[in-house]
Amino acid sequence: MAPASNQLGPNIGVRVAGAPAGSPTPSDFELTELPIPEPADGEVLFRSIYMGIEPSMRRRMPSPVGAPGPLGGQMQVGDLMTAGQIPLGDPLFAGHVGEVIASRHPDFAPGDFVKGGSEWQVYHVAPGRLLRKLNPKAAPLRHEMGVLGQSPFVAYCGLERIGQPKSGETVVVSAAAGAVGSAAGQIAKIAGARVVGIASGDKCRHVVEELGFDACIDRTVGPIVPALDRECPNGIDVYFDNVGGEIQRACFDRLNDFGRLVVCGMVSEYNAPESDHGPPLRPVLRKRLRIEGFVVWDHLDLYPEYRRRMKAWMREGRLKYRDHLVDGLENAPGALIGLLRGENVGKMIVRVSDDPTCLTR
Amino acid sequence: MAPASNQLGPNIGVRVAGAPAGSPTPSDFELTELPIPEPADGEVLFRSIYMGIEPSMRRRMPSPVGAPGPLGGQMQVGDLMTAGQIPLGDPLFAGHVGEVIASRHPDFAPGDFVKGGSEWQVYHVAPGRLLRKLNPKAAPLRHEMGVLGQSPFVAYCGLERIGQPKSGETVVVSAAAGAVGSAAGQIAKIAGARVVGIASGDKCRHVVEELGFDACIDRTVGPIVPALDRECPNGIDVYFDNVGGEIQRACFDRLNDFGRLVVCGMVSEYNAPESDHGPPLRPVLRKRLRIEGFVVWDHLDLYPEYRRRMKAWMREGRLKYRDHLVDGLENAPGALIGLLRGENVGKMIVRVSDDPTCLTR
Repeated sequence: MAPASNQLGPNIGVRVAGAPAGSPTPSDFELTELPIPEPADGEVLFRSIYMGIEPSMRRRMPSPVGAPGPLGGQMQVGDLMTAGQIPLGDPLFAGHVGEVIASRHPDFAPGDFVKGGSEWQVYHVAPGRLLRKLNPKAAPLRHEMGVLGQSPFVAYCGLERIGQPKSGETVVVSAAAGAVGSAAGQIAKIAGARVVGIASGDKCRHVVEELGFDACIDRTVGPIVPALDRECPNGIDVYFDNVGGEIQRACFDRLNDFGRLVVCGMVSEYNAPESDHGPPLRPVLRKRLRIEGFVVWDHLDLYPEYRRRMKAWMREGRLKYRDHLVDGLENAPGALIGLLRGENVGKMIVRVSDDPTCLTR
Repeated sequence: MAPASNQLGPNIGVRVAGAPAGSPTPSDFELTELPIPEPADGEVLFRSIYMGIEPSMRRRMPSPVGAPGPLGGQMQVGDLMTAGQIPLGDPLFAGHVGEVIASRHPDFAPGDFVKGGSEWQVYHVAPGRLLRKLNPKAAPLRHEMGVLGQSPFVAYCGLERIGQPKSGETVVVSAAAGAVGSAAGQIAKIAGARVVGIASGDKCRHVVEELGFDACIDRTVGPIVPALDRECPNGIDVYFDNVGGEIQRACFDRLNDFGRLVVCGMVSEYNAPESDHGPPLRPVLRKRLRIEGFVVWDHLDLYPEYRRRMKAWMREGRLKYRDHLVDGLENAPGALIGLLRGENVGKMIVRVSDDPTCLTR
């Protein structure tokens, strides 16, 4: 049974209110107060504690020229990165960690902690079968959005299924201080590769000194091409692309024979109209290159081994992870805007409500 | 010991005499007479009987603006498709089937038949370790250049390692009447796919009626886009690209989720300066596409299984194969020019000298 809504506080939601041509601004989002939903049979009501922010959310915002996407509120988790644009007035979708308030599913009870995908708001109902029950004693809830969450798993899938770095190879990772990039580079290091990051400003120091990359190119200082030539004297074997654009092309041009371009994200292009062309394919033939895009939802079969290995790497001190916490759902638009500008180090997480398992805030 | 050269007839060779900007013409080649080479220790002297012509040879010809390639006459077989341009005055390289005239290698004796890579000329010396001895009773020598030769094996490798067509998928093959394309389409049919060829004029009929493709688009009649939409109502899962250019782009745009673009050849572009861009990568991410180039020499581990399966498919009547014979090494330039124009049906082969195992010419 759902308790009375006056015990729970308001159900704030964020809706998309603008169709930005370039970078989104706060006015492209709108706060709204919604009734607290009632769980139907088989469903669970939960309050979000943490909500993860992904660059790919930008791709789902309506564009001034694009037609509204067909999916609206019908999306499932798997649609997050693959679906089309949402219509104005709809919410974005995100991964949440939350606490169960009421349950009409036999596997869940009030006070349980769960992980699942839902809209940008505080209270959610979801079918129990789409939720994963969490044990907060096994790992901090916050880790479920961070190091055990989607972003480093994205890195793992891209390297396991496409990049396949080998000992002695050179791997370049863009957005190297970000949630995906920081994990990608460290996993490639564990595989024995020379790893060169690309990041901006101060974050380069973090990438080299804390994360242990062999080098990090500051993309805000000088042109990228001579910097790549300097840091990758033997060419590039794997380029793990999080950004697209000019950096993608510079890395593509430096791929060695049998090089792999892992198309994970193209965040530098999400604020722009979609380009009609990419790198040429004659070098793909001559150098036997592989260019491949992937979406994490297609590789969930890797999740158990990922979780096991990631925990071991953390324990052995071989993998370090940070997150970037922003408080309050009302600050989620600013978190996405900041993420697209590269203001974060590590996973961008919105703390939607207090984490009852944390001793200190 | 090498016999006296006067018993053997002249050693004609073809050298590259021009650096064509577009299509090569006969004046870009030069006939020359060379001394018959003497085998050194471990080497074999053989006379070519059949020489295979490949579109990729065009890529090795010098271009008016390009610098001469560094490899000259030092190439090995494996360099054929991967090396840079050759300098003016050098020969092109090709696969040959020939008869041993003299041997200083213990595994070969005069009268043996061999297969190996060498220059465009009649007499060759090659290290015995780079030659394969043939049994003309097991398969006609001509088949060694054709159905058991490089081109259908290229098709096999591209499908086995990259395209991986599944039952019910739609596979599009360009240059479908050519040596590679005709095999690629038939192998995809054996895998249970719907196979749509692209060819020109009368060859379309051959592709459907003799080779058994489900449909064949005549690229000389009307625009390609509506024809693809008509013949591929469920989109394209695998595009086996032999031609590049506009057809490549039209097929790329129609790839389904998880589609594969097998970059095997880009013959429509070999007569033009190299394009600086290709298809866009945002769809690669969104649709999780794979674009991959390959060169057959990297997949020689597949050759024994290929040979076994190909022979079985031929025996069962599931794979049909034609070749296009041109007589005389002096006509090899015309054969390459014709191949680049798409004048052949099946493998283009130059008969350099009489095949002593053939009862009739």
